Amino acid sequence: MADRRSELTIPPLDAAARATAADRQSRLTKPPGSLGRLETMAADIAAMQSTTEPTVDPAVVVTMAADHGVATEGVSAYPQSITAGMVRNFQEGGAAVTALCDANGIENVVVDMGVAGEVPDAVVDKRIAEGTANIAEGPAMSREQAREAIAAGRSVVADHAAEARIVGLGEMGIGNTTPSAAITALVTDQPVEAVTGHGTGIDEETRARKVEIIERAIETTDPDPTEPIDVLRSVGGFEIAGLVGVTLAAASRRTPVVVDGVIAGAAALLAAELEPQVADYLLGSHASVAPGHEAQLDSLGVDPCFDYGMRLGEGTGAAVAIGIYRAACAAHTGMSTLAEAGLDVE
Amino acid sequence: MADRRSELTIPPLDAAARATAADRQSRLTKPPGSLGRLETMAADIAAMQSTTEPTVDPAVVVTMAADHGVATEGVSAYPQSITAGMVRNFQEGGAAVTALCDANGIENVVVDMGVAGEVPDAVVDKRIAEGTANIAEGPAMSREQAREAIAAGRSVVADHAAEARIVGLGEMGIGNTTPSAAITALVTDQPVEAVTGHGTGIDEETRARKVEIIERAIETTDPDPTEPIDVLRSVGGFEIAGLVGVTLAAASRRTPVVVDGVIAGAAALLAAELEPQVADYLLGSHASVAPGHEAQLDSLGVDPCFDYGMRLGEGTGAAVAIGIYRAACAAHTGMSTLAEAGLDVE
Repeated sequence: MADRRSELTIPPLDAAARATAADRQSRLTKPPGSLGRLETMAADIAAMQSTTEPTVDPAVVVTMAADHGVATEGVSAYPQSITAGMVRNFQEGGAAVTALCDANGIENVVVDMGVAGEVPDAVVDKRIAEGTANIAEGPAMSREQAREAIAAGRSVVADHAAEARIVGLGEMGIGNTTPSAAITALVTDQPVEAVTGHGTGIDEETRARKVEIIERAIETTDPDPTEPIDVLRSVGGFEIAGLVGVTLAAASRRTPVVVDGVIAGAAALLAAELEPQVADYLLGSHASVAPGHEAQLDSLGVDPCFDYGMRLGEGTGAAVAIGIYRAACAAHTGMSTLAEAGLDVE
Repeated sequence: MADRRSELTIPPLDAAARATAADRQSRLTKPPGSLGRLETMAADIAAMQSTTEPTVDPAVVVTMAADHGVATEGVSAYPQSITAGMVRNFQEGGAAVTALCDANGIENVVVDMGVAGEVPDAVVDKRIAEGTANIAEGPAMSREQAREAIAAGRSVVADHAAEARIVGLGEMGIGNTTPSAAITALVTDQPVEAVTGHGTGIDEETRARKVEIIERAIETTDPDPTEPIDVLRSVGGFEIAGLVGVTLAAASRRTPVVVDGVIAGAAALLAAELEPQVADYLLGSHASVAPGHEAQLDSLGVDPCFDYGMRLGEGTGAAVAIGIYRAACAAHTGMSTLAEAGLDVE
C-alpha cells in the first residue's frame, strides 16, 4: 500500500471560495456569464488557492530533463545528445519555453533529473542517473530511484517554487514519448497502439517499432498499473517521476498545476493515481496532436484551453496557458462590481 | 461607386516576409512544425507587417461607444444609460476590457462615437450625435454621418494608435447587437433569424421582437448590401462605423486587426466590403456564442483562436487574443536557431 499513496495531504478544494468567486462574477460590470470560461477559470483557481483573490503570479514553469536508455532503439528522430544540448539552450534563453516564459512573465526553472552528458552549472541538479536503462531490455530504473526522483520533484517545488501561485509542467528528454505512451496505456487501460504517436517526427515504420518496444517492455516488466512506483520502475523516466513529485507538492500547497503535453500528462496521471485529489488541482493547456493526450485529459477530467496542433513539450503549452489564466484572474479581481461603478439596475 | 471604396490603399501581404518567417521557423530549436498554429500566427503577422521581426508591441485595443435609438424598443436587457455608465467604468479602470488590457500590457483607447449622455473628458471625443435614430422607424443615420464616423475611426488610429503594431476592435453600446445582426444578415446574405441572438441576455419573446424589428428596418430602409455606406445609414451604429474606419486605417498601415465579437465582426465585414484586401489583415480572437459570429468569420476567412463561450464585447476577446499573438511572436523572434545553439543535426 505504501506505493499507492504519497505521505502528502492534498487539501480538498475550497467550495466556499468557489461560491464567493461565482457570486462576485455575477456582480461585476458585465452581463452575468458573459466572460464564459474566463469566469470559471478564475473560480476554479479561487477554489484551489482558497482565496478571494485568485492569481497566477508569481508563475513558474518547471522544465525537467532526463535521458532514456530506449533512445538507443531509434524511437526518436533525434540523437540522445540533443537532450543535454537543449538544456544548454534553455539556460542560454534560446528555447521555445524560454521565449514563451519571458513573453508571459513566468520563471522557468530547469532541472537535470538524469541527463546523459554535461549540463550547465546553473541548472538545478537532481540527477538520479545518466539516463534510464533501456526498457526494451528491462526495467527503466529501480523502485528506489523512482521514489528518489519523486522526492526530488517535491524538493524542487519547496526550493524553487515555494512562492509560486501556479506551476506549469515541462520536460525535455529525447525518447520520452516512449515511456509516456507506455504509462498512458497502462494507467488509462488503452491499447499501446492507440496512445503511441510520432513523437518529434518519426515515420510510420519507426512508430510501429516504437509500439512493439512498448508492448514488449510492458510484457517483460509486468507492472501493476495501479502502483505508480511500479509503473515508473518498469517503463518510466526520471523527468516523468520528477514531475509526479512537482505535481504532488504543488497540489499539497493549493497551487494549481498546468498540464502540458503527453509527457507532462503521463506524470499527472501517475500523480493522480498516487493521490486522486491531485486531479482537482490540474488545469489544462493545449490539446496536443499526440495520441494519448486526449485519453490522459479525459481520465484526469482536465479541459484543454486551446488547440493549436502543438507537440513540442518543454512546458510550451503551459506557458501559453498561464497567460490566459492570468487574464481570467485579472478580470475577476480587477473589475468593479455594478455597485462600485454605480451601475446597479433592478 | 464612391461608396463602395474608401480612398485608402491596403497593401498586399508580403509573401516574401511570410516565406522568410516559415524558413526561420524550420531552423529554430524544435522539431519542424511542433509549435503548430503559433508558428503560422507569427508568419501571418510577419506577412502583414512586412517584417522579419513580427511583434504585437505596442498593442492597442480601441473601444468605441455609441447609443442606439432602437434601444427604446426594448431589444436589450439593459437601459440606454448603461452605455455612458460603462464609458465612465472604462475610464475608471473597472471594466472587463480594462482589466484584460492591463493584464496583457495593452493600451485601451476609449472613444465616444455617439453616446447619449455625459462621458468623462478623458475619453476621445468623436461624437457624431447623441445616438442613432430608431431603425424600427427609419434610417439609423445620414450617409454623411456614416462617412464622418468612418473618417473619425481613421483619425483615431492616426492620432492614438499610429505606433501600434496590432489593433484590437472593441465596442460598447446598449442595443448594438441589433444593428450588428442586421448588417450581418445583409452582408452575409443570411436570414435575420439565423444571425440574431440574445445579446446581453434577453428572453426568447424579446429576441423574437428583435428579429421582427430588424426585418422591418431592412424592409423600410432597403439598403444595397454591397454598399457599406448605405448599410450603415440604414441599420448601422456610430461605433460600428467608427470601427470600420479603424479597420481600414490599421490595414492600410500594415497593422494586424484583431476581431472581437459580433459587433466588431459586423464592422470588419463592412470594412472588407469597402476594401476586400482588408480581410488579409484580420486576426481571430474568440468564437462568440452569439449567432452570426461564425457566419461573419467564415465570410472573412478568419479563424478564432479560442472558444470560451464569451459574449461581452468591449474588445475583451481581442485583449485575450493579443496575449496569445504576443507569445507566438516571442517564440518566433526570441528562439535560437539550431545553428546558433550548436544543435545542428544532419
